[in-house]
Amino acid sequence: MTEEIAVVPGDGIGQEVTPAAVEVLEAVGEFEFTEADAGDAVKDETGEALPEETYELAASADATLFGAAGESAADVILPLREAVGSFVNVRPARAYPGVDALRPETDLVFLRENTEGVYSGHENRLSEDLSTLTRVVTSSASERLAEFACEYVAEGDHDGFTVAHKANVMRETDGRFREDVLAVAEERGVDADEVLMDAFATHVCLDPEEFGVVVCPNLAGDVLSDLAAGLVGGLGLLPSANIGEENALFEPVHGTAPDIAGEGVANPTAAILSAAMLLDHLGYDEESERVDSAVTGVLEEGPRTADLGGEASTEDVTSAIVDRL
Amino acid sequence: MTEEIAVVPGDGIGQEVTPAAVEVLEAVGEFEFTEADAGDAVKDETGEALPEETYELAASADATLFGAAGESAADVILPLREAVGSFVNVRPARAYPGVDALRPETDLVFLRENTEGVYSGHENRLSEDLSTLTRVVTSSASERLAEFACEYVAEGDHDGFTVAHKANVMRETDGRFREDVLAVAEERGVDADEVLMDAFATHVCLDPEEFGVVVCPNLAGDVLSDLAAGLVGGLGLLPSANIGEENALFEPVHGTAPDIAGEGVANPTAAILSAAMLLDHLGYDEESERVDSAVTGVLEEGPRTADLGGEASTEDVTSAIVDRL
Ligand SMILES: CC(C)[C@H](C(=O)O)[C@@H](O)C(=O)O
Ligand SMILES: CC(C)[C@H](C(=O)O)[C@@H](O)C(=O)O
Repeated sequence: MTEEIAVVPGDGIGQEVTPAAVEVLEAVGEFEFTEADAGDAVKDETGEALPEETYELAASADATLFGAAGESAADVILPLREAVGSFVNVRPARAYPGVDALRPETDLVFLRENTEGVYSGHENRLSEDLSTLTRVVTSSASERLAEFACEYVAEGDHDGFTVAHKANVMRETDGRFREDVLAVAEERGVDADEVLMDAFATHVCLDPEEFGVVVCPNLAGDVLSDLAAGLVGGLGLLPSANIGEENALFEPVHGTAPDIAGEGVANPTAAILSAAMLLDHLGYDEESERVDSAVTGVLEEGPRTADLGGEASTEDVTSAIVDRL
Repeated sequence: MTEEIAVVPGDGIGQEVTPAAVEVLEAVGEFEFTEADAGDAVKDETGEALPEETYELAASADATLFGAAGESAADVILPLREAVGSFVNVRPARAYPGVDALRPETDLVFLRENTEGVYSGHENRLSEDLSTLTRVVTSSASERLAEFACEYVAEGDHDGFTVAHKANVMRETDGRFREDVLAVAEERGVDADEVLMDAFATHVCLDPEEFGVVVCPNLAGDVLSDLAAGLVGGLGLLPSANIGEENALFEPVHGTAPDIAGEGVANPTAAILSAAMLLDHLGYDEESERVDSAVTGVLEEGPRTADLGGEASTEDVTSAIVDRL
């Protein structure tokens, strides 16, 4: 049975790095690719950043490869995460060979709750002066995330995980989150400790090796994983996975890079590493590792795109990766 | 007229560094000091982390000098900020000479909204599975913060400010915040730009010099200023001010440091720099600058406490600072 992969390049360099990731997938397996639109360009044409067909395609495909979206990013990526029923956003942040990093010893994976928190979308303008947002935390979502974290820790080479939260202030909501997550870990016999999210922000700079797998509420995961990206040299190389019970969506953490879009010089690494996460998710473990080590090899020995101090094109780097597969 | 300064040392090294700050204040001016309890120790005795008298004292004194609190920190500091009517938490984060910093070029000041956001305290357990928190954003608080930011920029040597928010997701609440803050800046003719808080977390690591004065909602200010603390070498030296219309509270950003508490070796710098902010706030600009430069001199030439690689005691460092006044 051939898996169907939805391909949604989106805007800017999404249009360049997503085809590169498809090229790599084609080199290691047989998939059926279906492309669809999303983002600023389609919004300009049709008034909708996320056409119904694209939502439906992501919801029905075995996996989706997403590129990037511009101004309309939130209108694209939040519904797409929902379309694939994603409950966790997996965000590895590690330094790569050949890339300048503020903290080269950083090797973190964020498991970010992907359905609720301040992202639940309940906002109200109650008066001329006052607006409110209802932050939602459920035990069902917290426990599902924790189950995933326990499996993730067991499958990978991890000692346990740290739960980051702000339960000293958000006592009821983050209190519930931390309690549920720690309770699941205890039941499963997985080592888990905890840290306040503000203390994490300081300590990850001072000593990133103190941490490994970090489990967080939605916004905490957004901000803390971007902080970690700063420690490993930027968003440029970081992949991510939005995992659901049935399907999933994979996306580079970077954006549309309007300054270089259209020139064929974007670094395809993050998109290709996202494709490696996709392979792993679909059960192609060996293929996933091959892609990973081909990428690592090219990062070490070149060719390199301009962001890494080289002069190679997107296509040069992609071909070099494919050659190593 | 002699100003009344409330002194609330709290727990742990708060008991050591707060008297050091008082010693410095006594060396530069005439104040009436009144001491009061707060924190874990008084909670153990009386059941209350923040006795009513302490709250009242902070509310009536011209300024309060606070040390640190342990487990009960949130029960102490949040009501104390309210007692002094504080609407902004001023948190400078700059690297100091003689201190290892990941990004020595960091020179930031966070102006954190200090009354609302997720700190408004409205949480509910709606069912076995579901808890909510109501995040509150008002134009009155956002505009008051922005007015302060404009004055701060005008008085200091700053080009303008950056407002950090997450209005692409929290469209109504952070949308209101960013709009109000930018509108006040525009009215006052102050340059202001904006950044998403997650993007800030990456970029401040990659290029801290891109930023100067950063205006944020409450939790964003908490996390992003702690991140900046990581870039300048930790919380150890950072002071902060909670400013209200009538009175104000000053506190080191560090905690109780239970590992070294009671040994007389804690670094008093953050508390003394907080006292310098207090002097500035009460109009003793020249005295404030004298304290600042005495501290800088001692950081450069010693003596140093153990956290900075030295062997000096709290008292050695305090005397050295007083000697330079
Ligand atoms: C575009 C935005 C809605 C999104 C988020 O906040 O999740 C982005 O920052 C991310 O982390 O993928
Ligand atoms: C102790 C806690 C309530 C407090 C806060 O979140 O404001 C602390 O982290 C701080 O930043 O002073």
